[in-house]
Amino acid sequence: MFSLKLSRSRKNEGTLVDQIVASIEQELRHGTFPAGTALPSVRALAKSHNLSTYTVSEAYQRLVSLGLLSARAGAGYRVATPAAKAPEPSAWSTPSLNKAWLLSDVFAVKTVPIKAGCGWIPNDWINETGVQHALRVVSRVPASRIGGYGHPYGLSTLREYIANSLRRYSMSVGSDDVLLTQGVTQALDLIVRTLLKPGDTVLVEDPCYCNLLEILKVAFVNVVSVPRTPDGIDSAQLEEIVKNHKPKAMFINTVLQNPSGTSLSASSAFRLLQIADREGIWVVEDDISRELAPVGAPCLAAMEGLQRVVYVSGFSKTITPAMRVGYIAAGRELLSRLALTKMAVGLTSSEVTERAVANVLIEGHYDRHTAHIRERLFNAHGRVTQSMRDAGVEVFHTPNAGLFLWAKLPIAPEDSISVANEALRRGIWLAPGSYFRPGEHTSEWFRFNAATSDAPELWAFLRSLQEGAYRRL
Amino acid sequence: MFSLKLSRSRKNEGTLVDQIVASIEQELRHGTFPAGTALPSVRALAKSHNLSTYTVSEAYQRLVSLGLLSARAGAGYRVATPAAKAPEPSAWSTPSLNKAWLLSDVFAVKTVPIKAGCGWIPNDWINETGVQHALRVVSRVPASRIGGYGHPYGLSTLREYIANSLRRYSMSVGSDDVLLTQGVTQALDLIVRTLLKPGDTVLVEDPCYCNLLEILKVAFVNVVSVPRTPDGIDSAQLEEIVKNHKPKAMFINTVLQNPSGTSLSASSAFRLLQIADREGIWVVEDDISRELAPVGAPCLAAMEGLQRVVYVSGFSKTITPAMRVGYIAAGRELLSRLALTKMAVGLTSSEVTERAVANVLIEGHYDRHTAHIRERLFNAHGRVTQSMRDAGVEVFHTPNAGLFLWAKLPIAPEDSISVANEALRRGIWLAPGSYFRPGEHTSEWFRFNAATSDAPELWAFLRSLQEGAYRRL
Repeated sequence: MFSLKLSRSRKNEGTLVDQIVASIEQELRHGTFPAGTALPSVRALAKSHNLSTYTVSEAYQRLVSLGLLSARAGAGYRVATPAAKAPEPSAWSTPSLNKAWLLSDVFAVKTVPIKAGCGWIPNDWINETGVQHALRVVSRVPASRIGGYGHPYGLSTLREYIANSLRRYSMSVGSDDVLLTQGVTQALDLIVRTLLKPGDTVLVEDPCYCNLLEILKVAFVNVVSVPRTPDGIDSAQLEEIVKNHKPKAMFINTVLQNPSGTSLSASSAFRLLQIADREGIWVVEDDISRELAPVGAPCLAAMEGLQRVVYVSGFSKTITPAMRVGYIAAGRELLSRLALTKMAVGLTSSEVTERAVANVLIEGHYDRHTAHIRERLFNAHGRVTQSMRDAGVEVFHTPNAGLFLWAKLPIAPEDSISVANEALRRGIWLAPGSYFRPGEHTSEWFRFNAATSDAPELWAFLRSLQEGAYRRL
Repeated sequence: MFSLKLSRSRKNEGTLVDQIVASIEQELRHGTFPAGTALPSVRALAKSHNLSTYTVSEAYQRLVSLGLLSARAGAGYRVATPAAKAPEPSAWSTPSLNKAWLLSDVFAVKTVPIKAGCGWIPNDWINETGVQHALRVVSRVPASRIGGYGHPYGLSTLREYIANSLRRYSMSVGSDDVLLTQGVTQALDLIVRTLLKPGDTVLVEDPCYCNLLEILKVAFVNVVSVPRTPDGIDSAQLEEIVKNHKPKAMFINTVLQNPSGTSLSASSAFRLLQIADREGIWVVEDDISRELAPVGAPCLAAMEGLQRVVYVSGFSKTITPAMRVGYIAAGRELLSRLALTKMAVGLTSSEVTERAVANVLIEGHYDRHTAHIRERLFNAHGRVTQSMRDAGVEVFHTPNAGLFLWAKLPIAPEDSISVANEALRRGIWLAPGSYFRPGEHTSEWFRFNAATSDAPELWAFLRSLQEGAYRRL
């Protein structure tokens, strides 16, 4: 049916997948083949053109994503009906920025050129070889070992590995003190649903992780906040707020905080634990950036044990968020309640991705790769901090590590959303501070990701703010 | 270090992985090597014994699970310290059966010989070739396409495929009407958290899916119930309950219901939708067993559209629960709210597993495999129904399809938990009906899985109940 002209040299033609997609796309756009026409099977096309079935399969699936082919069980791939060609509603066409957009749709925007506000490492920083090798290994596991629901606590090899790693931070844990979750965000959600009920009061940092605020809102929990300082948390302020509001739990992002980039000083950590202990408050420690931080940064769970501290981390920032693997370490009794909540509301986590993560950790040169990410981030922070200075942007704290920088733009707080919208029209995604603050505050502070804030267009835009350009817009 | 004696013939020696595990285990149990001794790297051992790295990696990881090795980033595999050899708390030693155990720990019990009460297809029914092929394909996807968070709605190829499949049931949907979730259970949880708030009242079937009851409990929602009949739901009863309790939503498992095995008749479906429409009640249709059901069974979403019906399904029963891929189809406005909840409480679902599932569906001979499962289940139902009769066990309905049979044992309702405990001591896992009923009712009814209820020991035990053996215990 199709006569594919393929070049094995990648110089000008792109990958083989690209070439097949382009070639078939061209034929289909000419409308030569009516809707419903069957394409050659993956195997047949691969054979006739001496290609791997992977290459053909990937090309066909990309054409499905483009709305040009449709795929049905038993019927293979067919030319799509025009109806199915409707563009994704999520395609990027300068949306209007609001909290809902930031929370969800921004993840759909693969095409926004400059993701200065995003919360993840760039795709090309990922340990591709390690991840691909791991998935190949998983593909050889027999169904008898991977076919059913996994263990409620998650894959034991991975829990064992995690416990070993945590002991390096002098936490006293075994594999039975670890519960695997679908990322850190689900971990926080399970904790909220296990420890709290509607009407309870909790304490968060201002600013703090945006999804935590959403999780607490969905759980009908009252939120009070304590300001995050460059050193962590001011214990006198904390004492006052705890006295007035009697929170049941406090949520602390210990090192390289999202979004402020700050870390708790040892004394700030100690005072906080002292207050929590005296007042009987749960401390939920979000420690997702631990492996990006300098050694020796304080760890609440290591200091206090897992009596009152519930520890949360994961691998989104060092392996890939596509795996969705995170974990909770907590005392045995609480952990079994957390496992029950996990099973009740979603059953087990995926052993497929857990096995892949375990493999990357153990065999994928994980430590070397993580060291490389730290080095890249250190260099990125150097560049971005300098650019911030040049653009007249005030930085809250200069961590030189982790993903985040918290920066004050030269604008009025009430203009932050319009500035972010204006940036978006120029292909720049900014993350306004209001998104990370409890309550309905506006803010002239924004979160920046050092790994994705290199583009000259970003800095030109920020400089124009200093010059008052925005007010003239 | 180790001198492995391996036989390439599988006849008596087991797989190569088994042999390596046994060989290393023997050396370690003799205590020849002190804790902390490094093992040869995966690559080195593979090379020296002419093995694939997969084989060695799998063997090492199994030894980690046995507590004999430990794995650390950068340090490879080492002989574990005795402390790490402590047995998993989840190892099976005739636990005492209660709701918490059924909800969670039973998933940890890989060793209970007869899983008569379980809710999944046996591991060896899984399309192993299709799943393994799919994971190999996924392992070749470049990081640029799989490295980050996926689309908030989930992988578009898979949504497109699902929409195509649903149109076969005459549902009018496109890929933008579909939201991917981490299994059906998370789908139900997201719906509950999006549509309902604490104190709202909902209607469920009695009996119904056990996890739904847990989800509603965690959400502080009031539950009223309507009895499930062999035909579905009695509309006069439904009318009465709706009038008295004004539920905001009703949760219906349309075909081959879990646990009763019954399906809604066309008229039962029509009356139910009529009442829901008149009273303005959301209908959440759990349709997980659709592909195991005879063609032509009524589908609420197909009848009513997605105005008031929220449709939920997934691939746990036809591909493997290990992928954790399910979905919701709903009206656009509601679906975008559901996507927001999904993102808020757990971010995106895993594109790794979504790609694997898409590949199995499109290229894994999915229809043929599903037809094969239907045939096996039909045969299993024939055998089990006959055995039930022989054992004097009353069956609520004889579906001859799907996984489930709802059966009344010749015991007093208040004895159900002790009977289940007695069965467990004999290596038989039974699922007591109280687990599937709202409120704190006892029940002489039990859920059976036709695919896992073939063992003679099971039937001997059930026959002994008829003979009053239990009362003498």
